[in-house]
Formats: sequence, C-alpha cells, structure tokens
Amino acid sequence: MYKILILNGPNLNMLGVRQPDIYGSESLSDIESRCRVEAQTMSVDVTCRQSNYEGELVEWVQKARDTMNGILVNAGAYTHTSIALLDALRAAELPVVEVHMSNIHAREKFRHQSFISLMAAGMVCGFGSYSYILGLKAMYNILQEL
Amino acid sequence: MYKILILNGPNLNMLGVRQPDIYGSESLSDIESRCRVEAQTMSVDVTCRQSNYEGELVEWVQKARDTMNGILVNAGAYTHTSIALLDALRAAELPVVEVHMSNIHAREKFRHQSFISLMAAGMVCGFGSYSYILGLKAMYNILQEL
Amino acid sequence: MYKILILNGPNLNMLGVRQPDIYGSESLSDIESRCRVEAQTMSVDVTCRQSNYEGELVEWVQKARDTMNGILVNAGAYTHTSIALLDALRAAELPVVEVHMSNIHAREKFRHQSFISLMAAGMVCGFGSYSYILGLKAMYNILQEL
Amino acid sequence: MYKILILNGPNLNMLGVRQPDIYGSESLSDIESRCRVEAQTMSVDVTCRQSNYEGELVEWVQKARDTMNGILVNAGAYTHTSIALLDALRAAELPVVEVHMSNIHAREKFRHQSFISLMAAGMVCGFGSYSYILGLKAMYNILQEL
Amino acid sequence: MYKILILNGPNLNMLGVRQPDIYGSESLSDIESRCRVEAQTMSVDVTCRQSNYEGELVEWVQKARDTMNGILVNAGAYTHTSIALLDALRAAELPVVEVHMSNIHAREKFRHQSFISLMAAGMVCGFGSYSYILGLKAMYNILQEL
Amino acid sequence: MYKILILNGPNLNMLGVRQPDIYGSESLSDIESRCRVEAQTMSVDVTCRQSNYEGELVEWVQKARDTMNGILVNAGAYTHTSIALLDALRAAELPVVEVHMSNIHAREKFRHQSFISLMAAGMVCGFGSYSYILGLKAMYNILQEL
Amino acid sequence: MYKILILNGPNLNMLGVRQPDIYGSESLSDIESRCRVEAQTMSVDVTCRQSNYEGELVEWVQKARDTMNGILVNAGAYTHTSIALLDALRAAELPVVEVHMSNIHAREKFRHQSFISLMAAGMVCGFGSYSYILGLKAMYNILQEL
Amino acid sequence: MYKILILNGPNLNMLGVRQPDIYGSESLSDIESRCRVEAQTMSVDVTCRQSNYEGELVEWVQKARDTMNGILVNAGAYTHTSIALLDALRAAELPVVEVHMSNIHAREKFRHQSFISLMAAGMVCGFGSYSYILGLKAMYNILQEL
Amino acid sequence: MYKILILNGPNLNMLGVRQPDIYGSESLSDIESRCRVEAQTMSVDVTCRQSNYEGELVEWVQKARDTMNGILVNAGAYTHTSIALLDALRAAELPVVEVHMSNIHAREKFRHQSFISLMAAGMVCGFGSYSYILGLKAMYNILQEL
Amino acid sequence: MYKILILNGPNLNMLGVRQPDIYGSESLSDIESRCRVEAQTMSVDVTCRQSNYEGELVEWVQKARDTMNGILVNAGAYTHTSIALLDALRAAELPVVEVHMSNIHAREKFRHQSFISLMAAGMVCGFGSYSYILGLKAMYNILQEL
Amino acid sequence: MYKILILNGPNLNMLGVRQPDIYGSESLSDIESRCRVEAQTMSVDVTCRQSNYEGELVEWVQKARDTMNGILVNAGAYTHTSIALLDALRAAELPVVEVHMSNIHAREKFRHQSFISLMAAGMVCGFGSYSYILGLKAMYNILQEL
Amino acid sequence: MYKILILNGPNLNMLGVRQPDIYGSESLSDIESRCRVEAQTMSVDVTCRQSNYEGELVEWVQKARDTMNGILVNAGAYTHTSIALLDALRAAELPVVEVHMSNIHAREKFRHQSFISLMAAGMVCGFGSYSYILGLKAMYNILQEL
Repeated sequence: MYKILILNGPNLNMLGVRQPDIYGSESLSDIESRCRVEAQTMSVDVTCRQSNYEGELVEWVQKARDTMNGILVNAGAYTHTSIALLDALRAAELPVVEVHMSNIHAREKFRHQSFISLMAAGMVCGFGSYSYILGLKAMYNILQEL
Repeated sequence: MYKILILNGPNLNMLGVRQPDIYGSESLSDIESRCRVEAQTMSVDVTCRQSNYEGELVEWVQKARDTMNGILVNAGAYTHTSIALLDALRAAELPVVEVHMSNIHAREKFRHQSFISLMAAGMVCGFGSYSYILGLKAMYNILQEL
Repeated sequence: MYKILILNGPNLNMLGVRQPDIYGSESLSDIESRCRVEAQTMSVDVTCRQSNYEGELVEWVQKARDTMNGILVNAGAYTHTSIALLDALRAAELPVVEVHMSNIHAREKFRHQSFISLMAAGMVCGFGSYSYILGLKAMYNILQEL
Repeated sequence: MYKILILNGPNLNMLGVRQPDIYGSESLSDIESRCRVEAQTMSVDVTCRQSNYEGELVEWVQKARDTMNGILVNAGAYTHTSIALLDALRAAELPVVEVHMSNIHAREKFRHQSFISLMAAGMVCGFGSYSYILGLKAMYNILQEL
Repeated sequence: MYKILILNGPNLNMLGVRQPDIYGSESLSDIESRCRVEAQTMSVDVTCRQSNYEGELVEWVQKARDTMNGILVNAGAYTHTSIALLDALRAAELPVVEVHMSNIHAREKFRHQSFISLMAAGMVCGFGSYSYILGLKAMYNILQEL
Repeated sequence: MYKILILNGPNLNMLGVRQPDIYGSESLSDIESRCRVEAQTMSVDVTCRQSNYEGELVEWVQKARDTMNGILVNAGAYTHTSIALLDALRAAELPVVEVHMSNIHAREKFRHQSFISLMAAGMVCGFGSYSYILGLKAMYNILQEL
Repeated sequence: MYKILILNGPNLNMLGVRQPDIYGSESLSDIESRCRVEAQTMSVDVTCRQSNYEGELVEWVQKARDTMNGILVNAGAYTHTSIALLDALRAAELPVVEVHMSNIHAREKFRHQSFISLMAAGMVCGFGSYSYILGLKAMYNILQEL
Repeated sequence: MYKILILNGPNLNMLGVRQPDIYGSESLSDIESRCRVEAQTMSVDVTCRQSNYEGELVEWVQKARDTMNGILVNAGAYTHTSIALLDALRAAELPVVEVHMSNIHAREKFRHQSFISLMAAGMVCGFGSYSYILGLKAMYNILQEL
Repeated sequence: MYKILILNGPNLNMLGVRQPDIYGSESLSDIESRCRVEAQTMSVDVTCRQSNYEGELVEWVQKARDTMNGILVNAGAYTHTSIALLDALRAAELPVVEVHMSNIHAREKFRHQSFISLMAAGMVCGFGSYSYILGLKAMYNILQEL
Repeated sequence: MYKILILNGPNLNMLGVRQPDIYGSESLSDIESRCRVEAQTMSVDVTCRQSNYEGELVEWVQKARDTMNGILVNAGAYTHTSIALLDALRAAELPVVEVHMSNIHAREKFRHQSFISLMAAGMVCGFGSYSYILGLKAMYNILQEL
Repeated sequence: MYKILILNGPNLNMLGVRQPDIYGSESLSDIESRCRVEAQTMSVDVTCRQSNYEGELVEWVQKARDTMNGILVNAGAYTHTSIALLDALRAAELPVVEVHMSNIHAREKFRHQSFISLMAAGMVCGFGSYSYILGLKAMYNILQEL
Repeated sequence: MYKILILNGPNLNMLGVRQPDIYGSESLSDIESRCRVEAQTMSVDVTCRQSNYEGELVEWVQKARDTMNGILVNAGAYTHTSIALLDALRAAELPVVEVHMSNIHAREKFRHQSFISLMAAGMVCGFGSYSYILGLKAMYNILQEL
C-alpha cells in the first residue's frame, strides 16, 4: 500500500470561500475528501497538509522522505518563487507530481515559470479540482512502474 | 456519446521505433489502442490522426470544428513554433486538452513555451503514454461539465 | 494588363465560418470576389490561392516569379514564423504588398513581428476585408510607377 | 458629410525639399491637395495640420474631439516616442487611421514600435504619398460602417 | 464605522532601532499610535499587525476578509517577492492601499517592482511615517466612495 | 507662507471632458479649486499650470526655482518619456511630490517607469483627484520638516 | 559502400534561377550532379531530396533511419525555425553534417541560430556549392571513423 | 566664411544658475561669447540658439539647411529621446558635431544612448564648456576638408 | 571574546541525511561541532541556528544585532530569493561572512545571484563543510581588524 | 603557388596532450604536418603559427597582409572575445576561412558567438583535425575563383 | 611642462597602410608627429606608444603613473573588451582623455560600449586623426585647471 | 609535499602602490611572502607568478599541468573576460581555487560574472590579502582529500 503526501501551498485553504463563481464552491477539505475516496480505489493511503508558510511546506517535504512513497504538490504561489521547496523536494528523493487547478501558462507572465517543474515527474494543470484526481492517478501509475 | 479527436504532431509516428529505452516500446498505434479502450469505458468515440505537416494538422482541427466535441492534442515540436495551430484551435471553438509524454518544462529552454497552452483548458505532461489516458479523462470531465 | 497573385495563409479559409461576430460574415471566397470586381476596374487580373501549408505557399510564390507581376499576401500566422516565405518572396523579385484584416500591432506580442515586412513594399492592416481592396490599389499604384 | 483631420508630425513639412530622390518631389502641400481632391470624391471635408511640436499635435487632437469625425495621422518620429499623443488620441474617442510614407518595419529597430498603433483602427505604410490616399479611403470606409 | 487592518511586513519591527539617523527615531509602535489618533478623527477603527513571516502575513489577510473593510499594507521586502501575498490580497476582495516609507522607485532596481501594486487601489511612498497617515486618509476616502 | 507650484502635463486639461465614467466628472479646474481650498487650510499659496508642451513644462519648472518652495507634479505621459523634465526638476533644487490619478503600476508596461520618480521625494497614485490633495499634504509635511 | 541522404530545404530548388549574380548560375540539380561525381570517388551512394514542406523533410529523415548511413542537410530557412526537423534528426540516430552556401553568421540576426547545429556533428558554411562537396567529404570521414 | 549654428537643448539656459559648484559658474551666454571669440580666429560666423522645446529645435535645424554650413549641437536631454531631432538633422544634409559638457557614458544608463550620434560626424564630451570650443574646431576642420 | 552567530537556512538540517555520496556524510550538527572546536582555538564563542522559515531567519538576525559581533550565514535557497534577509542583515550593522558548501557559480543560473552578497564582507564557497571553517577564520580576521 | 597562413590561437598548442580521449591523440604539430601534406597536393605553401597571445596573433595577421594569399584561422577562445583579431583580419584584406575542431554551436552559450565569422568567407567546424583539411580545401577553392 | 602619454591600441600601427581610402593616408607615425608639433605650441612633452598586446598597454599605463601627467588613449578594439585596461587607468590616478578616429556610436553594436569611458574625463571621436589634436588640447585644458 | 602555483593577473603587481587607503599597504610581494610562510606550516611549496598578459597566464597554467598539484588564481580583470584562461585551466586538469581581494559580487555588474568560477572547485573573495591565505588552506584541504 503506497503512502502519498498531498501538499497544498498558500491560499489554497481559501478554496470555496473566495470567489466561488471562479474557483468553484468546493473547499480544500472537499477536494481532500475526493482524493481520499479516489485513493481507496487504488489501495493508496493519502495524507493531506496545507500551509501558508514556505518553511512549513519545506519541513513536511523533509519528513515525507522517510514516511511517504510520493508527493502530490500544488505549491500555489510558491510554485513560482520557492527555490527552497525545490531543494527540499530534490532531497526527498521521492516521485513528485505537480498539480494546479488553473492553467498557469495562460495566466500572468510571472506564473509561467515553475521551480517545482524542474524536478517533478510531470504536471497536471487546468482542470480545477479534478487536476488532483488526475495527479493521484498519475502518481499511482508512477509508483507501480518503479 | 462524445466524439474526441486525438491529434498527434511531428515525429510521434516514430514512437516505439526510436530509442525504446527512453521513450518506451509502445508505438503510437499502441497508445491509440489504449486510448480507444479507455474511451469505451466512458462511452466516448475517439478519432486518431497524426501528421508531420503543420498544414495538415491545421486542417484536421478545422474539420473537427463541426464533427467533434473536443480535441486532445500532442503537437510535438509544433507546440513551440506553430501560431497557425493556435489560431486553428481557437477558431475550432472546442475544448482542447494538451498532452506531452515528457515534462517539457524540464527540457531545453525552447521547449518551455507552448503556443497551445495559450488556449488549452489544461495540460498533462511527463507521464509517458499515460499522459494520453489522463488527458482523455480530463477531456471527458470537461465535456460532462459543459 | 497586370497579373496579381492574392495569397492567403493558414486559417483564412475559415473566414465567415468562425466567429462571424468578430471577423464578419464574409467568407474568403466573398473577399476574393470583391477583389476580382475591384481588379476589373483597374484592368488587373487576379489569381487567388489559399493554403494552410507553409510549403505550398512557398511554391506558389516560386511559381509567381515568372507568371505574375506582383503578390498581395496575407500570410496569416506564418507572417510571424516563416523565414521560408520571406526567402521565397525575396527570390521572386516581384513587388509585394502585405495585408492583414486585423491591426497586428494591437494584438499579442508575438504577432507584432512580421518576416514579410522585411521585404514588402508596404503594409495595410486593420480594415477587415477592405484591407485587401486597399492593398490591391496599392499594388496597382506600385506597378504603374515601375 | 464627414470631417477628417489630417495630422502630420515633425519634419513632414520638409517633404519635397529634402532628398527628393528618396522622398519624391511632392511637398506636403502637394499631398494635402491630393487628399482634398480625393476627399471631394467621397463628400468628405478634410482639415490639414502639421506641427513639429508634440504639444501642438496633442492640442489639435484634443480640439478634433468635438469638431471632427476621424483622424488620419502620420506622426513622423513621434510615432515611436509620444505616449502623450497616444493618450490624446484615446481621449478623442474618434476613429484613427495611421499612415506612413515608408515601411517603418523595414527601417531602424527603434522605428518598429508605434505608440499610435496601440489604439489606431489600422495602418497603411510604405506606399509614399499614396499611403495618405489609401488611409483616407480606409477612414471613409470606417465612418460609413459606424 | 470602518475597520481597517494596518499590516507591516519584515523588518518594520526594527523601525526606530536601526539607523535612526536614516529611518527616524519613531518606532513602529509610535507610527501605529499616530495611525490610531488619525483614525479616531475619522471614526475609523484600526487593527495593527506586523510579521516577519510571509505565511503569517498571508493568514492575517485571509482573516481580514470577513472582519475588515480595507487593508493598509507596507509589505516591506515581501513587496518585491511575494506572489502569495498578492494572491491573498486578491482573494480578500477588500480595498487595498500600499504604503512605503521610502521612495522605492529611487532605490535598487529589484525594489522597483511591486507585486502588491498589481491589485492595490493606489500607492503612497516616500514620505516616511507620514506615508501611513496619507494612506489612511486615502483608504477612508475610498471607503466613503464605495 | 509656502508657495507651491501645481504642474499638470499633457491631456490633463481634458479631465472631466473625456470619458467621465472612467476619469470622473471633475475638470482640471475643479481639481485646482479643491487644491486651493485645501491649501488655505495650511496657509499655503498654490499656483496652477498645465501644458501639453514638454518645453513649456520645463520652463515653468525653471521659473519655479526662484519663486516657489515646492512642486507638485502630475506629468501625465511625459512622466514616462521626459528626461528633460527630470533634468529641470533636478536643477530646480526644490522638493518635488509626484502624483497620478490612476495607479500607473497596474497599467501598460510602458507606464511603469517614471523619470520623475528618480528625483521626487515621494509619489501618491491611484486615488483619482484625491491624489492631489494627499500630495499637497505630503508637500506641506516636507516643507515643515525642512 | 555508404549510403548518404542529401537533403535540401525550402527555396533551394530555386538555385540558379533566382539572382544568379549572387547565388551563382548552378542549379540544385547541377550541385546534386557534382555531389554524385564526388561520391563516386569515395564509393559512396548519394540520394538527393528537396522539399519546401517541413513535414516532408521530417518524413525523409524518418525513412533515412533504416536505409541510410548519414544525412547531409541544408535545411534552408527551416534551419532557424524547425524544432520538428531537429527532433527527426535526433530520432534518426545517424551522423548529420550541416551545410549552407552562405555564411549564416554574417547575415540577419534571425539566421544566426540553427536548430540543426544542436545535434549535427559539424557544419560547413559560406563556400557556395562547394560547401556540399566539403560536407560530403566530412561525412565520409565520419563514417570511416565509426 | 563658414556659418555655423550652435544649438542648445533643454535646461542649458540654466547653466551658471543651477549648481555652479558642479556645472561651473559660466552661463550659456558666457559660453556663446567664448564660441564667438573662438570663431573669429577662424573666420567663422556663429549663430546661437537655445530652446527647451523639441519642436523649436527641429525647426531651427530645418531652417539651417539653407542658411548654415554646419551645426554644433548639444541637445541636452533630447539627445537620448528625440528621434524627431535625428530626422531633422539627417534632412538638413549638413555636417553635425555633437557636444556635451559631461561625459554622458559615465552617467545614468539612459544617457548612454544618443540618437544624435547615429548621424553626427563625431562627438566631443566631458570637458565642460571647453567641449564647445573643441567642437567648433572640429567643425571648422570638417568644413575645410569638404 | 567575540560572539558569532552561525546561521543556516532551509534544508541544511538535512545534511548527512540526503545524498551522502554528494554532500558527504557529515550532518549539520557535525559541522556545528567542527565550528565550535575551531572557534575555541580563536577564543570565539559561536551560537548555531538553523531554520527553514525565512521569517525566523530574519528574526535571529534582528536579535543578533545587540548580542553578537558577527554573522556567518549560509542562507541556502533564500540566498537567491530573500530581500527580507538582506534587509535584516543590513539593519544588523554587523560584519557578515557568506558561506556555501557548493560553488554556486557553477550551478543552475538562478543560483548565481546572491542577495546576501550585496552586503556581505566576503564569500567562501565550494569547499564543502570546510567552507564554514574558512568562513569562521575570515570572520575572526575581520573582527580583529575592526 | 598560393601562400596560406594557418593560424592557431590559445591552448591549441596543448592538443594531443590534454584529454586525448576527447580531443584525440594528434598534436598540433601532427595536424600541421597533415596540412602540409594536403597543401602539396594543391601546390600551396602553408605557414603555421600558434600563439596564446592575442597581440601576437594580431601581428601575424598584420604581417600576412603583404606576404600571404589567405588565412586559415582557428582562434580558439579568442574567437568569442577578440574584436582586435576581427579588426586585424579585416585590415588584412585577404580571404579568411574559420575552422574549429568541435561544433561550437553545440557547446556553452558564450561559444556560440564568433567575431571571426563576421568577416570570414566561411566556417568549417566539428570534424576534429579534419576541419583543417576541409578548411584548406575551401581556401584553395576560394583562391582559384578570385 | 606637462608630460603626456599618447597610447594607441591594437591595429593602429596599420594606419595609412590599410584601406587608405577609408582611414586616410596618414600613418600612425604621421599622427604622432602632428601631435608632437601641436604639443610644442603648448609646452607639452608627449611620449607615444602603440601595442597590439593588452598586457603591454596595461604596463605602459602602470609606468605612466609616476612619470606622466596625463594619458591620451585610443585603445582600438580593447576599448570594448578590456577591463584590465580600465583597471590600470583607474590605478594610474591621472587624467585620461579617450579618442577615436571614427564615431564609434555609429558603428557595430559591440563598439558602442567603452570600458575606458567609465573613467575617462571625456571623449573625442569621429574626426579622424584630428581627434588626437583635439584630445591633446582637451588634456592640456584639464591639466591647467587642476 | 604539494606544489601549488599562485597565479596573479593584471594590475595585481600594483598592490600597495595604488590607493593604499583602499587596497591596503601590502605589496604583491608581501602577500606572496605571507603565502610562503603559511605554506610552510602545511609542508606545501608555492610558486608565485604575476602577469599582465593573458597569453602569459595561459602559458603558466599550461606548464603547471605537469609540475604542480594545484592552482590558486586571482585572475584580476581577466576573471571576467578570458575564456582562454578558462580553457587553459580546464586542460590543466588540476584543482583550482579562485580568490579575490574584494567582494566582486558587490561591485560593477560586469564584475559579477567569472569565467574561472565555471571550473574552479571554489571561491574565496572579499577578505583582502587574507583571501589568499584562506584560498591556500582550501587548496590544501582539497589536495589532502584527493
């Protein structure tokens, strides 16, 4: 049974609260529930964490190194600014799948670059909360092929 | 029943032939078969096309406008150079999902930019042939929510 | 009697079909008809070609070298990416007038550069299908002054 | 009957005087006369102004707001440097057609950018004094379609 | 009665301590007191927060969403690096006024860009602690006009 | 009693006339009146000038050197293009406060750079006509601390 | 006996026709004949192809993979724009020699970059049709050392 | 006897007034007197003009075309921003010598580029008012060699 | 007796754990021990702190201001992204020595820029854990020369 | 009988000594011998020079002006940095052929630019020591066509 | 009596030899003679040196430190590439005047930047050999004002 | 016993002579003596060389290949411009330690890039002559760990 960390970065705790007409009415906890349901179909165990602190995200990744089999990450705004998170993910030596609810390539120019992408196995973006489900499937697929 | 065009760009007809140790031993036709199997589970009908000609890809997109419900596209190298394909996809007024077998963000700099991304609903990249399956699921999810 | 090639690039065959509220309801063939009518008032003979293939556009330009007196070109998306078309037009050694339906300078940044402009006598852009009529007049004016 | 302001920027008062072998022997007043003749065929009334002062050009544009139906502008060197003129034209809320005698895209790099283009309906360039005539026709076409 | 959050970023807790000859001898708490006095003249209630943690600033902004009417923010160095703060402010859907004690445009190049400015109503900078008072007045003016 | 020059650049004479839905219905003379009223509360004497000519603005700044105590300037479009105005303001050796009605940092990229900012004490932008009132208060604060 | 594909890109079919004073009076078929004569002295068998279509060039390279021992390529304008051709050449896993008649480094800036160079063994440029003969010798030298 | 126009741009009328410790105590009229004295030793007749208006500088250059033999120009801040002045100088078809009191290459980056330099015979900069005397000698040398 | 703060940034707590073949088998606590031993030979007292939080690093620097004589800092990934840390170090008004285990100039481009370097006395990089010992010696040398 | 200077720049005297597995076991003197043998078949006389001094290379080029018919140059690292060598080659007014053992376009970015290319007739690169033989043939071909 | 070093960089020893139609028929020794004649009228003693070696130029500047009163330098191509020469000139702590025969601002882009300009008092360029005479006068003027 | 080459580049022979208030009163020979004393404590033998000639530095590095165990290099200005030195150091296949007296990252922008850094084991900069001692220690540490 694989253990997967689902890590969410800054402001993702506001899902469902802010602008539901744009981001949908699902809260982060709704999404995490959907992930857990999906995980059960794959005999996967997911652990969900969210933080608005770059340092805390780094530390969860560090701890995942010895306790998890893979990391599914939506680093939010830190995607574009955090080399520390990139370094932590590299040091974790685990497969990483990057997800985003929106298509970051079609937004402001400063969101086009992702430090996470430099080491992630792959990326899923643009499909709203369903990006998480697809990312989970992708992770499962990777783990099975290792 | 949704009709989805799966469009592959230049050199993707060489899958399975060139460097199988890197790109895997699946041929494009193997991938297309997997997509058809996956599509059946969703009551979706897929049409598969591949071309090394930018012009031919443009024309298949043009024709899809009236005959398809969505386009799943791996434009290969044209991803990074073809404004013509971007224009065709915009004119098709259909949902578009962009897929890549490799993580294009971790390759040469000239592969980081995607003209397709400027109009695609979302992107799946980095999961080998499984990117297509995830892309198909994403497309199905979009079509159901329309 | 002057012979003028009117050359249209990728996706211009979709005029009138796609987004008529934006691009107007005239089809490419409507525009070509207007050009023919206009040409008659100047005792000019126009030949109209459209292709979505860069290679085919190059070859029509090559053939025009010995059979035409001038080329009116709306290269569509290839305006911004095709050095091959630039080379073909230079080799044709004929007067070239560049036209665009929209004002390319007011659109996305990657549409601001035109390879055609590097060798064209002049450009008319932004006046919808009327750009073609003005371009034809400009070409006629150039031919008379040679 | 439409009233159109034909506005010429710096150094255009030197037409016909400087380098006639390059710019032709027509003076600005010759061109303005040709425009008036052309305008009569369209029942259009043209007012011609030229200034070497950015401020004066701005003020003529401001005055045109309430007295004119459209502005045909060859801003000369200010095309590339004057945000003030861009702002004035935007505030005028009139259709604007940009003209240039030479093909500015084939000249020095600092002439490739036009602030006027950011708000003009369209541009005609590269056809010598005939650019004005074509620009006038374009303006007439726009006014009739309003 | 309006409720306004006055939010200060990293190192602003050192005001009055470090280099008093440059930054003045007022401490942050002196400035906050002046703001409270000023607020009283406007029947405004201010809440003052400072943090050196990007994550904590993000969370105060998130909480302000439901409890405040506007945010006055001097994000210090995070002004130039924090997309997370920009996202939090956007999600708060409250009027934001950006203030800086120094004129950031006249300092090192990396301080010229402000992510906050992309969504702030306006900015006041360069007037030392008086920037806060002016910012408060600006905020009050905005709230009254809503 | 301090004497302050309020200097307005190109197109600001059109305030209240152009697009009142965007820029408000206040004319420049309304704003100047508000400034005069505000100035009286501070025993300040304001002189108001507007010009669309870069040269005239330069000369008013030159004259201010010996007759004024400070300059409040909204240089409009010249903010972004006039090194001459920057030089004049530097030579005036007076405190300068820069104001803008809109938040220039959130507009087109070419409006992000301000030559005035390189020497101004500070900037107030984004608060409509109230930017002038805040700027006046800022100037008064500076003059008192000299 | 080695089999070498000599591949020519867009507009090279116009050699000898266009501007003979610049490009010489040799046609492409003359050059191909010279290559065949040269090849015979080395017991090499050359196959010559020219296309103005990027897609066709890609496909000839794909076919060469199993039928040729090396590729001599003058990709013309596609040298600077075709990532698809680069990908095809990489997938062919054959030695590639790049040739150009002119010295591309001394021409317009957009001709300085070559995608072909990223994978070619080497380049010969600037010696007119003799570049092909030198390129053939270079290819022969490479093949003998394999 | 040669006739030379000495043209000074914005803010140079403030010489001797502003910051005499930096720019010296000589006024522009002192410098012009020195030039006249120098000119007499060469049987040269100098005409001195200064303007803060770009347009007026352009017009003096236009008039110089038929009345002067050469132009000595210190365009001040317009050196770096005025394409209009460059165009006027080119149209004048007279030898031009560019002078600056300070070494513009050692100042702010935006002063490193000179539009005047693109057409001037040469430049003298960095020697204070003596730059004018050297520039006058340079001009005399050029005129004698014509 | 000098008191020196040894400050380590994000992920340096993972030393010895992650990829020992690359980073060596020494843990951060091993390195700190070596530093303490080295410090004793110089009658220096070292205090060691590590944090993955930018905010916590900023606060330790703030506290060092009154309790330490110098700061030896390896800011890890924050070296390249944290202006907040730069500001804190500037405000501390203490000598700063920057160390890195790897040669940051030979790594990815985004690691070439160091905000710390803008204010540090000097840098030691590339010598693994021995960089700390050299940095300590450098700091001691600086303190003795004050 | 043509006289050709073969000029080698810095570090090429180390060929065969350094990394023979990469650069081959041929020394520079071996290559020069091969060139002499090749030259004899063409009745060409070659003179070989190598220097690690930019100044000495410049002077050999200067002397070649009156004693040689052509220059074959591998300027090594000075290819990318020496404008002095470019100037010397231009002043020599002789045909120049540029050679490199490696394909400089496929190496570090700072090796992509060649000052020599700006004036060389052509370039041969990427074929190891055989580049010299091809370069010699190219030079001979040029000399015969003069 | 002032002692001035006149220092010439690479390829200036070729003056009068290469392309006399462009650079004139004066040799460097002719120019040095003219300088000596001019120097006598000012009771100045000039020492003339030319080298094609960057290192030798650096050393002459080093020696000038204790034996000369000023340096007149035309560093030729090293103007644009030699930081070593800049450092030597700074260390010499003597007034430096930079001269060029051609107007370097109107040549290739890589000649627009001058490292010498960063520390020179001023520059004279574009007046052929007369640039040296003017430079000498400028130097004399500087020395007298010290 | 290790043999280490201490190599100094241009202008370092001027240490102690030029600006002693800035660079200290130690001459290069003083520094070399300090290095020799330090070396003795480590049973290391140092050879000291300085040159202002890039070519001579290259040659000393070439000779060090067979006679030295490591190179300590302060390439002065050539740090930023010499690819030839980089190539020589790479070919030497010896450990290299880069030292600088000043913190090059805090000086002019053109001193931020170091070609030496691309291959050096590490760098010590900013500690005056003590940088050499630290560099020597670093080298010794590297040699012992080989």
